[in-house]
This record gives sequence, C-alpha cells and structure tokens, in this order.
Amino acid sequence: MLCGTCGPSRRESLSGSYLLTCHFPFLSRCQDPRMLLSCIDFRYITDVLTEEEAYEILQKGQVGKKEREEQMLMHGYPAYTTSCAWLGYSDDMLQQLCTEALKSGWTRFKVKVGADLQDDIRRCRLIRDIIGPEKTLMMDANQRWDVPEAVEWMSKLAEFKPLWIEEPTSPDDILGHATISKALAPLGIGVATGEQCHNRVIFKQLLQAKALQFLQIDSCRLGSVNENLSVLLMAKKFGVPVCPHAGGVGLCELVQHLIIFDFISVSASLTNRMCEYVDHLHEHFKYPVIIKNASYMPPKEAGYSTEMKEESVKKHQYPDGEVWKKFLAAQGN
Amino acid sequence: MLCGTCGPSRRESLSGSYLLTCHFPFLSRCQDPRMLLSCIDFRYITDVLTEEEAYEILQKGQVGKKEREEQMLMHGYPAYTTSCAWLGYSDDMLQQLCTEALKSGWTRFKVKVGADLQDDIRRCRLIRDIIGPEKTLMMDANQRWDVPEAVEWMSKLAEFKPLWIEEPTSPDDILGHATISKALAPLGIGVATGEQCHNRVIFKQLLQAKALQFLQIDSCRLGSVNENLSVLLMAKKFGVPVCPHAGGVGLCELVQHLIIFDFISVSASLTNRMCEYVDHLHEHFKYPVIIKNASYMPPKEAGYSTEMKEESVKKHQYPDGEVWKKFLAAQGN
Repeated sequence: MLCGTCGPSRRESLSGSYLLTCHFPFLSRCQDPRMLLSCIDFRYITDVLTEEEAYEILQKGQVGKKEREEQMLMHGYPAYTTSCAWLGYSDDMLQQLCTEALKSGWTRFKVKVGADLQDDIRRCRLIRDIIGPEKTLMMDANQRWDVPEAVEWMSKLAEFKPLWIEEPTSPDDILGHATISKALAPLGIGVATGEQCHNRVIFKQLLQAKALQFLQIDSCRLGSVNENLSVLLMAKKFGVPVCPHAGGVGLCELVQHLIIFDFISVSASLTNRMCEYVDHLHEHFKYPVIIKNASYMPPKEAGYSTEMKEESVKKHQYPDGEVWKKFLAAQGN
Repeated sequence: MLCGTCGPSRRESLSGSYLLTCHFPFLSRCQDPRMLLSCIDFRYITDVLTEEEAYEILQKGQVGKKEREEQMLMHGYPAYTTSCAWLGYSDDMLQQLCTEALKSGWTRFKVKVGADLQDDIRRCRLIRDIIGPEKTLMMDANQRWDVPEAVEWMSKLAEFKPLWIEEPTSPDDILGHATISKALAPLGIGVATGEQCHNRVIFKQLLQAKALQFLQIDSCRLGSVNENLSVLLMAKKFGVPVCPHAGGVGLCELVQHLIIFDFISVSASLTNRMCEYVDHLHEHFKYPVIIKNASYMPPKEAGYSTEMKEESVKKHQYPDGEVWKKFLAAQGN
C-alpha cells in the first residue's frame, strides 16, 4: 500500500506510538535500554556486536539526550535533495531546479550518473558551477557498473568533488564495494550503499569489509524497525555515519523516525550525516514530512506517519478509483 | 507447482530439449561455445570471470567430452544420501536406515546436526560405527549457528571426520563462512553452502573470499539455468567442486541435468564431487530420477524432468483434490 517493499504488519505494530517519546518509549522514557534491546535479533551478528556492547552504546547515548531532542525539535535533522538532477532532466531543467533549491536553502545535492560519461561530466560541471565549490555534491549510479568500471568512471568524475558515489555496483557485492572504496579513498570519494540491503547480515559484512563510508538504511527494505535498530547500532560501533535512503511513496515519512532516533539515542552526531529528501507524493499522506531550512522537522503526531489520506486511497483504487477509470478509458478498455 | 522457489517459466523455456545433446545443444553439438555464453549474464562478475575466460574454460572442456558422456551413460553421476539421518529420527531408525543404505551400495552419508551437541556426538558416533572409517560423512547445520559457535561446535565433532559442514551460519554471511572455513581447515573439515544463495554475485564473493570448499548450487533458488551456468564456470575457475543441493519436490530431477553437464563440459572431474539425493516424492514425477549403485543415471527423456503426473496434480488440487478433501473432512470443515 505504501512503498513496494513495505511489509503488511508495519503500521499496525507501531500504531499509537509517538516519535521520540512514544515511538521508542522504551528508550527515551526508561533509564534501562534492555527493553529496546529485547526487540533486536542478535542472531548472526554476535561476531561483531553482542547484546552487551549494544547495551553500552545505548547507555552512553543517554548522556545529552534531552539536549539533542531539543536540538531536533528546534532545527530538525539535516536533509539533502535528490529532486534536482534525475537522469532524464534537460540541462535547462537541471539549472532551474538547482537554482530554485539553492534559493530555498538547500546545501546538499545529489546527481544521478552512470548512463553516459560525457553527459555526466557536462551535468556535474553545470551543477558545480551553480552550487559553487563549498556545497555538498553526491553522485548516485543506481548499480550501473561492474567493479573495475565503477573505479574508472568515478576517477573521471573526481574533479567535481563528490562526497560519495552511491550504489556503484550490485547491491549484493560486499567485496566489490570494498574494492571500490579502497580505490576511491585517495580521491576523497566515499562509497554509499544500503537501500537494497535486505538484512542485518549484509550490513554487518559491509561494515566488516570497510565496503562503505556512508550507510543507507531503508525503512522498508530492511523489513522492520527492529532490523533497522540492529543496523544503527552496528554502524555506531564501526563509526560509520547513517544517511537513510528515502523518496519512494511514504519513505521520507517513515525513515525520519529512525534517523532522528539515531541522532538522539545512538550516534549523537550530525557529522557527515544527512537524510535523503525527494519532493514527491507527500500530498497523499495524512501526516506528510515537514521540511524547514533543508531539514526534517520531527513529526509530532502519533505513529509511523504512514497513514494515507482516505481520498487518495479511494482515487487510486483499482479499477473503480477516479485515476484508474480515466486511465482505462484512455486506453479504450 | 514444483519446488517452492521454482520460477514459472522454467519448464517452458527448456521444453523439447534433450539432456547432454539437446538440453544444452549449443555446447554439446556445436564446436563453438559462443552460443552457450550468449545465455550468460556477465554483469557484475567480470572482475572474476570475463566472457573470454569462460570461453577458454568451455573450449578446454571439449577435450574428452565424448568419453565423459559415455562414462556418465554407463556409471552415472555419484550421489550421496540425506535420507538416513534427519534430526527427528530415533537412534533405532537411524541405525536401521544407515544399515539398509549401506546394503544398497551407498558410500556417502549426510547427518543433520546443530540442535544439541551431546545428541550430535551420540548420533555421529552411531553412524561412524555403522558405516566405518572409510565411508564419507557430511554434516549439515541448516544455518543454526553464529560464527564463533559454528567453529566451537564443529571442533567437537571433528573426531567423526566429516568431509564438510554445510550451512554453518546465515547463508548471506560470506565473511562469516570465510572465517569458519579458515578455522576448520586445520581440522580437515570443509565448508559447504549455496542452497540459499540467490544469484551469481553471492557465489562470486563466496569464491573470492575462500568461504566455501564445496559449492552447492540449487537449480531453483538460482532462478534459471543461465544463472547456474555462470556459477559452474566461476567454480571451475576457482577450482572449487560443485556438489548440488537436491531433495525438495522435484529438485533431484532438475539438478541432475546441471551436474552431469558440469562434469561433461566444465569441470571434467569427479574428485570430491557428488550430488545430493533424497528418496522423497519422486513418485509424482513422470520421469523420476534413476539411481543405480548410488549414482544418478542420466535421464534419456526430453526436457528438464519436471513434469508431474496428471493424477498427482489432480489428487493434490485445492480444495477438490482427494488429498485435500480427506484432510479438510478430518479437520471438520
């Protein structure tokens, strides 16, 4: 109903909870993180993170928690925009969107790459010219390359100073990402991945193999809040910043909870951290994300922010919803 | 309809083909393996196997092919049995089944382990006493352990001289399997895995990381003959024997084609190689596997041997088949 990869029991299991204080009530109201830990499945990850180590991380996270919560409520969690530079956009469109985004206060931009090297060079130059040398630029190849190709291609885009290259190759290729990370490190380019990683065992290995420098959880792909928690804790242990994947239908709404929790209770840091934002389809949600100054403002409503508006659901119901009716009529059915 | 993981287009895409000569007609009738290679997706694996390298492997495989085909037709492909030592069997049952299997000519046996160490020790001792020190014994933990636990547990079963420990931990844990492989090598125990590996990228890494010493393709899990071919070729390059997973409904029927092809055209070796066999549900298939002297005899019928008997399908149709009718009546529905 939400994102294609969203499990059916997600909303039910969290309904009635309240972000920061109720969404994770065990942690933020209790002095003992044991209750939160009891939700995590440590099977298959004890070789890198035991329950005791996770307990210590959460205990340390208690210090300064209140201040961090206030900081979030006041300034929000830093975001970056993926809305300006999709592959299909013309140079004019790209220029216009980047200029507008800059005006709206965005300081971090992601550009899609990997279809054609000369196009990439031209587009990246255009964006750098608009945003200037100080703003942050990320690149995303959406699994386009084989391992040697990724290194070669990115070496040619290094002049545009990307912070990271995202999904340079198959999302299952832990060792491939490690090879790419090692090759690109001297160029100052990190590797980001995770949106297609389906469980904590894959993330464990990405961390063990130094295969990523930015870890991109996906609130749906990982299949549960519980599974995400174990990944946040492993990332903390390895000192790797979490920069969630978002953008799909309702994904921004979902993931904001996890990343704000990460800051308040686990990482306690914003260094090199930001959450993806795509300005797309939020109008269908009862409690859409609120972006202010290029930051996610903590939602104050109960729940996981996934409830869709009844009228949106009705309109898109197959085959009797208004949208489908029009579509099918146009198809001559 | 067949195995739970079997894709819908499997049979159709291969119908009308004939094992060894028609099932892979490109290879066995043509002098040029290019046509076979054109079925393989090399994306994401070129860092370990290029199309040129695969071509060379297949070219070398041409030498002695006719003799190997004759060898298969005469003696079949060596198998091992998993039917004697499931976890739920009593010691009496286990004793009886092992004794019978020995009498039927079986020389390779697999025992399930991992539920209780003392049980495992008792059961493995019992089996070794029956089969003697020379016969081959394999162990299968079905993903039971965390990485350190696997090493510890298997160290205590080393006295029973298992050839391999199968699926000691999460099937996604490439680096974990590598750690276990390294730790168990001095004990003479190899690691076997693969039945849950969903694509060539995972197998690529298992080979790169020296994470397995026996590679267990699954004709359904890997999703296509094509994907299996790429794995057979990578295994050849790394010198790792392929010992397919079988046993599920129709899995023995399916996988025999792949492993006999592997011997004739790729590996050209039977050293440390054998195919799993479980004596279960073959009666529902129109062309069930033929086992002689503990070996798979090459099927001579056209196709992938997956066609079920019409009466079997009819009987098990929900809710009007005879089997379901009885079951539902017994449930009081």
